[in-house]
This record gives sequence, C-alpha cells and structure tokens, in this order.
Amino acid sequence: MFESAELGHKIDKETFKAEVPKLRAELLDAQYDMLEKKEFPVIVLISGVDGSGKGETINLLYSWMDPRHISTLAFSSPTDEEASRPTMWRYWRTLPPKGKVGIFAGSWYSQPIADRISGDMRRAALDEHLDQINRFEAMLVNEGALVLKFWFHLSKAGQKTRLKALEKNPQTAWRVTKASYDRLKTYNKLQQVAGHVLRVTNTAHAPWIIVEGTDDEYRSLTVGRIVLEAMKRRLAQAEVQRVPVAPPIVHPIDQMNVLSELDLEQTLGKKEYERELAKYQARLSELVRDPRFVGKRSLVLVFEGADAAGKGGSIRRVASAMDARQYQIIPIAAPTEEERAQPYLWRFWRHLPRTGRVAIFDRSWYGRVLVERVEGFCAEADWLRAYAEIDDFEHQMVESGAIVVKFWLQISADEQLRRFKERQDTEFKRFKITDEDWRNRDKWDDYVAAVCDMVDRTSTGLAPWTLVEANDKNFARVKVIKTICERLENALKDGK
Amino acid sequence: MFESAELGHKIDKETFKAEVPKLRAELLDAQYDMLEKKEFPVIVLISGVDGSGKGETINLLYSWMDPRHISTLAFSSPTDEEASRPTMWRYWRTLPPKGKVGIFAGSWYSQPIADRISGDMRRAALDEHLDQINRFEAMLVNEGALVLKFWFHLSKAGQKTRLKALEKNPQTAWRVTKASYDRLKTYNKLQQVAGHVLRVTNTAHAPWIIVEGTDDEYRSLTVGRIVLEAMKRRLAQAEVQRVPVAPPIVHPIDQMNVLSELDLEQTLGKKEYERELAKYQARLSELVRDPRFVGKRSLVLVFEGADAAGKGGSIRRVASAMDARQYQIIPIAAPTEEERAQPYLWRFWRHLPRTGRVAIFDRSWYGRVLVERVEGFCAEADWLRAYAEIDDFEHQMVESGAIVVKFWLQISADEQLRRFKERQDTEFKRFKITDEDWRNRDKWDDYVAAVCDMVDRTSTGLAPWTLVEANDKNFARVKVIKTICERLENALKDGK
Repeated sequence: MFESAELGHKIDKETFKAEVPKLRAELLDAQYDMLEKKEFPVIVLISGVDGSGKGETINLLYSWMDPRHISTLAFSSPTDEEASRPTMWRYWRTLPPKGKVGIFAGSWYSQPIADRISGDMRRAALDEHLDQINRFEAMLVNEGALVLKFWFHLSKAGQKTRLKALEKNPQTAWRVTKASYDRLKTYNKLQQVAGHVLRVTNTAHAPWIIVEGTDDEYRSLTVGRIVLEAMKRRLAQAEVQRVPVAPPIVHPIDQMNVLSELDLEQTLGKKEYERELAKYQARLSELVRDPRFVGKRSLVLVFEGADAAGKGGSIRRVASAMDARQYQIIPIAAPTEEERAQPYLWRFWRHLPRTGRVAIFDRSWYGRVLVERVEGFCAEADWLRAYAEIDDFEHQMVESGAIVVKFWLQISADEQLRRFKERQDTEFKRFKITDEDWRNRDKWDDYVAAVCDMVDRTSTGLAPWTLVEANDKNFARVKVIKTICERLENALKDGK
Repeated sequence: MFESAELGHKIDKETFKAEVPKLRAELLDAQYDMLEKKEFPVIVLISGVDGSGKGETINLLYSWMDPRHISTLAFSSPTDEEASRPTMWRYWRTLPPKGKVGIFAGSWYSQPIADRISGDMRRAALDEHLDQINRFEAMLVNEGALVLKFWFHLSKAGQKTRLKALEKNPQTAWRVTKASYDRLKTYNKLQQVAGHVLRVTNTAHAPWIIVEGTDDEYRSLTVGRIVLEAMKRRLAQAEVQRVPVAPPIVHPIDQMNVLSELDLEQTLGKKEYERELAKYQARLSELVRDPRFVGKRSLVLVFEGADAAGKGGSIRRVASAMDARQYQIIPIAAPTEEERAQPYLWRFWRHLPRTGRVAIFDRSWYGRVLVERVEGFCAEADWLRAYAEIDDFEHQMVESGAIVVKFWLQISADEQLRRFKERQDTEFKRFKITDEDWRNRDKWDDYVAAVCDMVDRTSTGLAPWTLVEANDKNFARVKVIKTICERLENALKDGK
C-alpha cells in the first residue's frame, strides 16, 4: 500500500517553478467553473504522518486558488458543543457547499486513528467507526461531491530526515518539538493502524491517494495536479452517478395496511382529556429536568402527519410542558438556498440538540420519502437510498444518547375534508389552508403507500414510529405526550 | 419494521384460486425471457421465524415456475469441506448462473442470527459479519443480479396459532416437534436480533421485504407477485446500474514507480542457485507438512507477471517441493461459459484450497485490473470497484486461515524481446509465443501503470505483493521460494 510512496520521489526546483504557473491558471479556471455551476463541492482530505508536509501543501493550494472560495477545516479535541452531539456532527456542520472547496486538515479519520494507537479504541469499535465513515463518504458521493482523500506517507528514515531539515531551517525550527520525536517511536504502530484504516476505507467511490511526503515540490505538484484533473473530469461529467438501488415494491396485495387498521374513531372526553394532559405535562416537565436526562441525554421529537391532522396542536401541548430555553421547535419548510447547496440531511443535522436539550421537528427528514417521493421532487434512486441514510442518521443520534420519538398523525379523508372546510370558513384559520393542501388531498393513496413504506423501512427497535389516531384531537394529544413520557422513562431507567 | 406484518393479512381461497393461473403464466413467461437473455440471475432469500411457511412458499414457487431452471439451496451446519474455507465459500459455490433462479432457504443470514441468539457470537462480531454480507450483496447487485430478500414474520400469538394448526392437520403434524415449542420461548430474543440484523442490512440495493406469514394464501401470492414484478422490471431495464466510482488518477508525476526502481540486473550464479533452491525446497516441503499448517492453515500463491517473465518456471520449482496430492495449480485462461454466467470472482472462489492444502494460481483475479483494464474488456466502473472486492476476497481467505502470497515477476522490455525471439526460434518453445504477446508488448506503458495501481491499492499488511526482479531466472526462482518459506514460517510462528 505504501510501496509507491517510499521510492524517493523528487521534482527539482526548476521543473517545479516552470510547472506552477500553468497549474495555477488551470486550477483557478476550474475553481471559477465550479463556482458558476454550483453543482458539486470538492472535499479534500489531507492526512498522513507528522512532518509529511500537510500544512505546507494546504498553504500552497490556498496560494494557487482563490482563497475566498476555499475553507480549511482543522479539528482537534471536540468542543463542548461537539462532544454533546453525534461524532460526525462536527464534520457535517463544516461541509463546503456546492461550488466551493473544503480542505480538511485532519478529518474524520484523525480521532479514530489516534484513539486506536493510544489503545483507547478497540479493534471492533474502530471497524464499526470505519463502516460509519464508509457510509458517510458514500452519501457524499451520492449527493454529487468530489471527494479526494490524500494520505502523505514518509518512510521511518524519511520522517527523521524531515524533522532534521525542519530543525535546521530557522523559519521552521519552532515546529519541531519533543512530541515530534516521540512520534517517531510510535511510527510502526501508526503504520500498522493506518494500513488497516486505509485498507478498510479504500472504497471504489472514495479511494485513498497515497503520496510520498519527503520532497516538497513532488508532493505539492502531485496534489495540485490530481485536484485539478479530478475537478476537470467532474466538471465534464454529464450527470450525477447514482447508486444501484432495488426498485420499489408494491405490497401488500390486500387492502390492509398500518394506516387502514388504525381505529381513528377513538375519542377522549373533555374532562378526562384535561386530567390526562395535565398529568403527562407535569411528568414530562419533571423528566426533562431529571439529572439523568440533563447530563447525558437529549430528546428528538419528529412530527409528521396528514395535512390538518393536528401536528401543531400536539406540538404546542408538548412544548408548553417545558422551559422555552430547553427546547427548540424546528418547522421544516422548503430548503433555503444555503441548505440546497448541501447534502439532503445537512439541514437536519444542523439542528440536532445538544445534551440536555429537546428538538421538536415539525415535519422532518422524512420529507424525502413522503412529499419528495410522491411529487417527484427527487430521483427515484435518491429517495430509495434515503431510507438507509435516515436510519443511519437516527442511529447516530441514538448512539450519542438521544431519545428519538417519531409520530405519524393520521386522520380519515372525511375528517380532513371537514377540517379543510372549517379552515376556509374561519377567518383566523384561513392562513392554514392553501391550494397545495387540496392538491395533496388528490394524492391521498400515493401518500398512504409512501407512509406505509416509510413505517416498514424506518421503524426500528431504537427509533420506532408511533402511529397516532387523530380524528379526535384530545385523544391524539394525550397519546403523543404519554408516548413521549413512557419512552423517556424507559430510556432513563435502562440507560438506553 | 414488523408493524405491517402483524395486521392479520388474509386472502380468501377463492380469490387465491382465481389469481394463480394468471400469475403462473406470467411467471413462466418471465422465467423463459430470463433464460433466453441470460443477462442476470434471480437470487431469492426466504428467511424468517419458524413455522412462518417458508417451505410451503418455496414449494409453491417451484410448482408455479419451471423447476428445471430453479435451484433451492438449503444450508445447515457447514460440511467439512465448507468449514475449512472462508464462511462465504458455501454460498459462492451455489450461486445461480445468469438466466436462472436460485432460492435460498436459509441463507448467509441464518448462521449469524442463530449464533447471536445462542450467545455464541458477540455483537461486534455480528456487526462485522453483517458488513461482510452488505459488501457481498452489493457485489451481487453490481454484477447485475436481482436480489430479493424475504423475511416471513409472525407475531408471537401468530406463531402459536400456526403450530396448533399444523398439529391439527394429519399431513403436517409430523413437522411440529418439541423443538418447535422451544422456539416460542426464544421468540423475543429472535425478534430483537432479527430487528437489528434486518436494520443493518436493509440497504438501498438489497432491501428486506417483510411478509406476514400467518395466512398461506396471502404469503404465497405476495411473494409470487413481488418476484414476478421484480423480474419484469429487471427484464425491461435497459442497462446494468453501475456503482458510483471515483475516476482513476494518473500519478506519479515523475518517472519513478515501483517497477522502475527494481534492480532487474540482480543475478545468482548456477552453484549458489542450486544450493539455495535445494535448501528452500527442503524447507518448504517441511513447512507444508508441519502440523500447525496441515491442521489449520492453507496456502494461496498468486503468480502474475509480464509475458515471458518466467511464471511457469517459478511455479514448477515451488510445486516440485510438495506432494502432488497436496497442491493444485490453477492456470487462469479465458473464462468458460459457466464462469461467464457468474460474478467475476466466482471462478476463483471455486478453487480456494481447504485447510492443509495449497492452491497455486498461474494468473489470477488480478486479470480484471490488468488485462481487462488495459484492453477495455470491462467497463471502467467494473475494474475500479474490483480493487475493493479483491481486497475483501483476500481478507476473507486470511481470516479463514489462509496465507496469501502474491508475486509480480518483472523483466525489462529488452529481456522480454530476447525471450520472445528465443521462443520463436526454438521449436519446442514456439507454442509459448503468440501474436497476442506481441500486441501486449506494444502496450508496455499501460501495463506498467496498471501494475503500479494494483500494487498501490491491493498490497496490504495481510496480503502484500512481492515484486520479483526476474531478468535472471535463477535469482527470481530463489526469491520466490524463499519468500514463500519466510511468509509461512512467520505465519506458523505468529499464528497469523
């Protein structure tokens, strides 16, 4: 794997100087083409052994391109903000938008490699993490990103030579510390761990590019040329490559499905409603202030449902049991320009709550397999791959301590019609009903199919769906808040 | 996940009888279309809880289609043959060829689920295995296969009801044993494990189809229709879906590469050659008879190299140190018709040696990233994904105890020319030189690039490449046999 990077590759300074002007001009051209098209981001990972010239090469790339459209992202220990969310959150938040270049100095690989070398991470945990990374990178590529993963390699002797050279030069001597020499001692261990990590993550969609780090000119020219060539090829590519997907399957063959079997006529009398609501609001209020929640857990509530099914009303009953400083309601509408320039899940990742907090999503990431599927707003391959990506997303939340509670509020077609009419006739409710609502109603059956597929494919042990019979608002609201309390209680009890 | 399969789906017998004739006719049509086109196999997995009607449905599918072109594959405990090879070997050997349908009653999922329930497999080991399965299924889909994974589900009450019904019917009562009732006790554990397994392997390319198993008519009609619909859709599909791949990258930028840096002029005098060869042949002969080898390990030797580089001569020197009953030489030429009807790696999987045995591959699975790449015999996406698939293949061998030793024999262009001419001029060597050899020679540089990429991407810690300087045959032969002895010695010492 590292064989090619131990040969003593070298480019002499004259050749380098002669080559750079043309390379710079072409890089700038490609960068501006990208910016104009805004079709894909470039994600460059610069990783490798210490002293292999990562910083120098990044600085050079900056000086060769227009630095206003590059961002460099360096990561050390996670901040408080980061540590209280899923591991990948810090990387999601810094992804470059379409049209821009993001250089990751250190990346999602740094921490697992360091933890494995220090022995803080077991082999099995490392492999699980690497699979996570493979799925993340596959998602990036499926979303159109150009991902270039560089690993700068030095032979053991080469690393020593580089340290000596840095020390000799007064401009760089400060960079050599005792820690630098200590790292020589762990060289073999690093090579072994890196060899394993690179092997497992050397995927067809995002392979590693191993570059010998010894010679500055060779290393930088190599990286510059590869980045240029890959950008040019990606710019010339006619369409986004799409992952192979199994076609959607129409099933069941009878008229029975998870929605048809709901008893929508269940009701709750006013008195009982008020008593129950008060009881569970009080309990919820306590649960989210419980030290076992505040210190380690977070709560993610997802509200989906038919139009006029009463999501808003349920959300208000839940929210009013909590302190406004503790929760945030995130209404999901059409994505902003900034959000459209990112992978689909980005706009949800950004709102994940930190430990001790509650996020209430009024509509959610399920839009892709509901409205986007039904209305044809995305390609079939895109919503078909979304199920696994969503499942992965939610399980990352759960692993980081989140309790994920998902509601689908269902009303009958008749009840929906009644509510639509009521909204039209009531002055202060008129803003709640639009032409789109009427159009969606025409696609009732398509939505039913989409909801059933969604439940089949994303209701999992750790993040199950709760289907709520919502013809009676009282019944629905109590079922929602009661479910939240029960899930919270179980989670705090089990620690799960 | 199982919500839709606990609703009590039911199709009455009349509807069933009325539907079946049309379904049968269409299934047969689709089956014959498939057979004629020979473009893809259909791989149907029938899994699920006990008593959910797996056997019945398989028998029905048989009666509905032409049974001559279906194979049903059932697996219980691995045979000796199977146990002494990588876990997936038993499944590879039974894959249906293009044009045919293979029904897996039980499958690669059965053993891990059973082992997890019994506690014989830890969670981390299970997850590692599931990732293996995901890669395997992705390979199948990338090779064009239609993969349909059915999971038959019963609620706990449903399972009990089915057992009672089977007992009541004299024709089926024999199938209910004490073990059947014992399984009711592990129902919850099974659901939990199955839920996890299904979640992790619910990929976009091969998602699970969960079917309620309670009602015979519903279950069978559902499966029949889904199989039919998927076959029809696949038959209508214009081209094979290809996995997104990163484009190949041309690098290095100087003239230096792993081949150019070899000192091809190294030689070994006749006397020293004979002494060394005899020494290592004796050692090899002992090593492969060592109980630590015979009982647990196998040896896989891969010989690749430039034309006329001397693979055959080296192989003979290695082979002659062993008992002919212990090793097999596998010369890889153009694939047979049977092999062309299978995924690319199938024809190599079939030759994997069992424990205590040696397989010597004269050319190998690297053909895809060498000759097929250079000559354009396969799509770019296919050879680009081959690196990761090959790496996975070799690591499965290593995990099962194989020692994998890979040689690239390199000669200079001049030396090749000399040998070509010599072959033409020597009567008994003339069969060794063909027009194709001369054509390959014209593509020398393309082959160099392909070899360098191959080494960069597939020389791993557990299955490294050894590059052999082969201008001098004596030197090459001794380096080869010496390397084999050293790798064997290390492996037997470390147990790795």
